[in-house]
Amino acid sequence: MPEATAELRVIGVARTPWSRREDAPHQGEASPDSRATLEIEEQYRGGLADLASFARIWILFLFDRSRGWSATVKPPRGGPKRGVFATRAPNRPSQIGLSSAALVCVREAEGIVELQGVDLLDGTPVLDVKPYVAWIDAHPDAGNGWLQPFLDAGVEPRLKKPYRPPR
Amino acid sequence: MPEATAELRVIGVARTPWSRREDAPHQGEASPDSRATLEIEEQYRGGLADLASFARIWILFLFDRSRGWSATVKPPRGGPKRGVFATRAPNRPSQIGLSSAALVCVREAEGIVELQGVDLLDGTPVLDVKPYVAWIDAHPDAGNGWLQPFLDAGVEPRLKKPYRPPR
Repeated sequence: MPEATAELRVIGVARTPWSRREDAPHQGEASPDSRATLEIEEQYRGGLADLASFARIWILFLFDRSRGWSATVKPPRGGPKRGVFATRAPNRPSQIGLSSAALVCVREAEGIVELQGVDLLDGTPVLDVKPYVAWIDAHPDAGNGWLQPFLDAGVEPRLKKPYRPPR
Repeated sequence: MPEATAELRVIGVARTPWSRREDAPHQGEASPDSRATLEIEEQYRGGLADLASFARIWILFLFDRSRGWSATVKPPRGGPKRGVFATRAPNRPSQIGLSSAALVCVREAEGIVELQGVDLLDGTPVLDVKPYVAWIDAHPDAGNGWLQPFLDAGVEPRLKKPYRPPR
């Protein structure tokens, strides 16, 4: 079947302490103290108004260092391969990543969004920023699917160097 | 500044009861009983394996009926205009929408993902499906930013017909 695609605007870039794939933590929880910055392009900065009222934001970004996609991927905590849509792995058809992070501050005129607890690689293209709205986004009882037994057993992600906080 | 863009794959389409923008609820919470289906293109169906182990999923989609974007938008609950990145409004630079929904079932071979509580318009292009992982995604204490006083006051979205459950 022919591939349908959509052309989307890139609104900025992420500046983070993680320059190599093997150094980046898995999701923001791995590095709650790490600081990062989003640099938003000039023409989009007006859209940052009111963002500072939120404690947490979503970052939608491009996995620009993933090449191609796989229907199934090997999770970093081990176990069998899993369907890519049942993971947050980079090698997905759309190449879109989704992470939330704690908002430190917004400098609207400069297009700077300071964040804490970010798992993005340095230089990652940012597609969108959205508020984390607990009322609609927080579902603490939703569980963790196939990942639950790995969390219960305290299995850490493999194939990565151990995380060391910067500084 | 020249616009940077990225070309992303569309993996399928949403089939929902909402065919007109004025009928669609705001975020899934407005219609917890409404059923909807994602139809995933044949070449991506293998990626649906293991998704059924999750109670909830993220849908990343294209606001294909929004035309252009605005730096600030008028929220449906009233009050002043807000920066578009501080809202989940459709008229955003990237045109990407993010919603979570309860997973009813996955029929991998047919490429069917049945959902409950979906706010997408019928025919919406789907860019990605990801598991909702409570461990990383649930932050019930993150608050609701500028929206909080409107929620406290019980203000309902305006400029919409009242929601009526289908059937």
